[in-house]
Amino acid sequence: MLKGKDIINTAQFSRKELDLIMNTAAHYEQRVRRQKVIKDMEGKIVACLFFEPSTRTRLSFESAANRLGARVISVASAASSSVAKGESLADTIRTVDGYADVIVMRHPETGSAQIAADHALHPFINAGDGSGQHPTQALLDIYTIRKEKGVLEGHTVTFLGDLKYGRTVHSLGYFMTLYKNKMIFVSPKSLRMPEDLTADFRSRGAEIEETDNVTEALSKSDIVYVTRIQRERFTDAAEYEKLKGSYIIDRNTINKAKKGITVLHPLPRVDEISTDVDDYEGAAYFRQAHNGMYIRMALLALLSGVV
Amino acid sequence: MLKGKDIINTAQFSRKELDLIMNTAAHYEQRVRRQKVIKDMEGKIVACLFFEPSTRTRLSFESAANRLGARVISVASAASSSVAKGESLADTIRTVDGYADVIVMRHPETGSAQIAADHALHPFINAGDGSGQHPTQALLDIYTIRKEKGVLEGHTVTFLGDLKYGRTVHSLGYFMTLYKNKMIFVSPKSLRMPEDLTADFRSRGAEIEETDNVTEALSKSDIVYVTRIQRERFTDAAEYEKLKGSYIIDRNTINKAKKGITVLHPLPRVDEISTDVDDYEGAAYFRQAHNGMYIRMALLALLSGVV
Amino acid sequence: MLKGKDIINTAQFSRKELDLIMNTAAHYEQRVRRQKVIKDMEGKIVACLFFEPSTRTRLSFESAANRLGARVISVASAASSSVAKGESLADTIRTVDGYADVIVMRHPETGSAQIAADHALHPFINAGDGSGQHPTQALLDIYTIRKEKGVLEGHTVTFLGDLKYGRTVHSLGYFMTLYKNKMIFVSPKSLRMPEDLTADFRSRGAEIEETDNVTEALSKSDIVYVTRIQRERFTDAAEYEKLKGSYIIDRNTINKAKKGITVLHPLPRVDEISTDVDDYEGAAYFRQAHNGMYIRMALLALLSGVV
Repeated sequence: MLKGKDIINTAQFSRKELDLIMNTAAHYEQRVRRQKVIKDMEGKIVACLFFEPSTRTRLSFESAANRLGARVISVASAASSSVAKGESLADTIRTVDGYADVIVMRHPETGSAQIAADHALHPFINAGDGSGQHPTQALLDIYTIRKEKGVLEGHTVTFLGDLKYGRTVHSLGYFMTLYKNKMIFVSPKSLRMPEDLTADFRSRGAEIEETDNVTEALSKSDIVYVTRIQRERFTDAAEYEKLKGSYIIDRNTINKAKKGITVLHPLPRVDEISTDVDDYEGAAYFRQAHNGMYIRMALLALLSGVV
Repeated sequence: MLKGKDIINTAQFSRKELDLIMNTAAHYEQRVRRQKVIKDMEGKIVACLFFEPSTRTRLSFESAANRLGARVISVASAASSSVAKGESLADTIRTVDGYADVIVMRHPETGSAQIAADHALHPFINAGDGSGQHPTQALLDIYTIRKEKGVLEGHTVTFLGDLKYGRTVHSLGYFMTLYKNKMIFVSPKSLRMPEDLTADFRSRGAEIEETDNVTEALSKSDIVYVTRIQRERFTDAAEYEKLKGSYIIDRNTINKAKKGITVLHPLPRVDEISTDVDDYEGAAYFRQAHNGMYIRMALLALLSGVV
Repeated sequence: MLKGKDIINTAQFSRKELDLIMNTAAHYEQRVRRQKVIKDMEGKIVACLFFEPSTRTRLSFESAANRLGARVISVASAASSSVAKGESLADTIRTVDGYADVIVMRHPETGSAQIAADHALHPFINAGDGSGQHPTQALLDIYTIRKEKGVLEGHTVTFLGDLKYGRTVHSLGYFMTLYKNKMIFVSPKSLRMPEDLTADFRSRGAEIEETDNVTEALSKSDIVYVTRIQRERFTDAAEYEKLKGSYIIDRNTINKAKKGITVLHPLPRVDEISTDVDDYEGAAYFRQAHNGMYIRMALLALLSGVV
C-alpha cells in the first residue's frame, strides 16, 4: 500500500495506512526486543540528509535503518554540503538519488520536502521542513498513545503550551480527529491554536474546548501533550515570566490531574516538565522518543516494499 | 593488476588498467541494478577522510563502500580532526592505517595525497588534493562517455568554460589523448588551457583546436564538457558579466549544436547549464554523478583484491 | 564478568578484569589479522557520542564496533546536538539509550561520564570526560606494554613531560602499581605528578623516583611514556622555551638510553618526539594507537556479553 511512496505531511494518510504503519512498527518492536538480527533491508542504502541539525531525529532514523540491515550515508549539517556552493536543492537530491534507495531529509525551509520528493525517483521521507510538517513525529505520537492506552479512540487529550507555532501539535491534532478523540487546547491567549486549524478539526467532527485553565483541563484529561513556551515568542519579558509558571508540569500538577493521565512531550524539554515527574509511571516521553525508532523502521521498510 | 596499489593521479594509469576499472564498474553497476546483496568487501573497513568538505564525493565513496558490504568510518570536516591539534598528516594517516583496510582522502593541499599514500600500508585513494588531482572524477567522466556513446574513441569533445583552473578538464584531457579523440578548447582568453598541458596532449598525438566561438565548436562536437566560470577569477566585474552569458548552455544552444550532443558537467552547477536542458536526452550530468558510485566500487574492490 | 557493566574510570578494574580485557583484545587481534569476518555483535547498535571532537578516539571506537559486526550511530561534534537546545545530558542519554545497545561518550565536563552511565540502561563506556578519566587509553597502554615486552611486571617505566595535567599518565600510573613496576617521574618542577597521586601509588606498594634529569632516568628505563608540554601551562614564555628542549626525545636521546627502551606516546604528538625516532624498532606509539582498536573491540564485546 505504501511501496514506492513519499512521506511529506500528515494529511496524506488514510486511517488504513496509519493502522498499517503502527502494526508494522509493533511487528519490528517485537523483533528488536527479542534481539533478532533483521536483514529486511540488507543491501539497501538510506541517505539521511540533515541540512538543519537534529541529533535526536537523525540518530533515530539512522538506528532504524541499521536495525533493518540497511546501510546509512549521512549529512549531519548544511555547512559541509554542496548547498554551500550554490547548488539547488533539486540538483542535490537528483545526485543523492543516484547513490541511495531511500532519502530522508530535514531542511530549514518550509515546502522543501515536496521539492525534494519531486526530484527523487526513490522513496522520500520528510524529517521536518521548517515550520511546515514533521509527519514522523506525529506518527510516533499516535503509536505511543495506542501503546500506552491500548486504543487510539475515545480519549480526552489536552494540548498544552505553545499551540500557535508548535508544528507537532498541529500534526497530532489532525490525527486525533481521525480517531475520534476530544481535544482541549490550553495556551496563553497569544499562543492559541490557529483558528483555521481549529475550524478544520471541528469540520472533521472533533469535539474541541479552548481554555487557559491548566488545572481544570488536566482534571478531565486522559493524556496531556506538553510543548515548550519559548521566551522568543514574547515581546514583554515580564509577561513571559508570569505565564511560564502556569504551564509547567510538576509532580504536584500530576497529583491534581485525572488519575492515570499520560504525559507526552516531543522533546527536547528544558523545564516545562519538572524532573520529579520522570519516575511517575504515566510519564511516557522517553518511551515516546524510543517509539520513534520503530515507526521509522516501519516507514523505511514499507516504502521499500520489503515488508 | 591493481591489488594493493594507490590511486594518486590520472597519469599513473595504463589503458589496460582503465579498461579493467571500467569493466569492473560495469560489472558492479549490473549487480546493483539487479538489487543483488554484494558481500565482496564484507568485514573490511574503508576510512573516508574529508579534511575539506565535499558532500557529493564523500557520499559517493561511502555509498560505494557500503554497497560492496564494507563498513565506513568517516571524517566529514577538518574542524573535528586531530589536524587541529597540530598533528602532521603523516601521523594522522599512520594512525588511521591501523584502523582501516582502505583509506580515501580529500585534502585542501596540493601534493598531500602522495604524502598520505607514502605513510599508509593499506591502499590509498586520492579524492582530490587542492588544485592537484581528482582522478576518480576523470575516471567517472570516461566511464560516462563510454556508456553514453558506446565507445571511447573517435569523438570530438569540446571543453567549455574555465580551462585554466578546472582540474577536472586537465585530468579528462589526458585520458582523451589515450583514447584518440579530437579536443576543442573553448574559453575566455584569460582562462585558456595551460600551454604546457596543450603541448603535452599534442605530443601524445591529440588533435586540438582552440577557440572562443562556442556556437561553432558545438556545431561539430559529439560531447561538450561544461565547467563553471567563477566570478573570483576576474578582477573586472564588467568583463565577467559580459563573458558569462556566452558560456551558458541552454536549450537554444543545444538546438544549434550537433544533433545528439552529449552534455557533461562535474557538478555542482550553478547557472552555467540552464535547467531547461535537464530533460534533453543527451543531458548526461546526473547519470555522470551516478556513475561515480560504480567507478568507486570498482576501485575499492580492485585495490582490495576482492574482484 | 563484565557483561552489562559500565566503564567509567581506571580504579574500577581488578587485575582479573584487566587480564580478561587484554586476553579478549588479543583474541580479536588475531581474528582481525587473519582477516576473519566477525559477526559477534551483528544486529547491535553502538552510539558514539563525541560532544568534544576527537577524531582518533572516535574512529578507533567506530572501527572496533564495525569490525565486530555492530552498526554505529554517531555524533561527531556538540554543535549539531540537542545539547545546544538546552537539553540536560541525562535526557540526551535516556533518549539515545532507546536507540542503541551500547553508548560510548566523550564529553568536555569532568564527571559527566558517571551522570551519563547512571541514566543509561545499556552498557556505557567513558571515552574521556574533561580532565577526568580516559580509561580506554590506559587499557591500550598496558596492552601495548604487555605486547611489546611480553610481560606487564617488573619494568622500570619513566613518565616524561607534563605529569600534572596529563590524565593519561595518572591512569596508567595506577595500572602500573597493580602490576608491580618501578616508576620514574620526570618533569619540570611546575608540572610534577600531583602529590596525592604519588602518595596513593606508594601506598599501593609502588617504588617511585622523581627527578628532572631526563638522561639519567632513561639510562635505566625499560619504557618511556612521553607526553606533551604545552606552552599554555607556562606564564613565562622564556621558561617554556628553555625547558622544552630537554624534554624532546630524538634519536640521540635513544642512543644514550637503556638498550631496547620502548617509546610510548598517547598521540597526537607535535614535536616532543622527533620524527627521526619513528623507524627505531622500540618506537611503539603507532602500534600503541593501533592496539586501541583491539582493546575497544574487547570492551564492546565483553560489556555486550557476546564473548
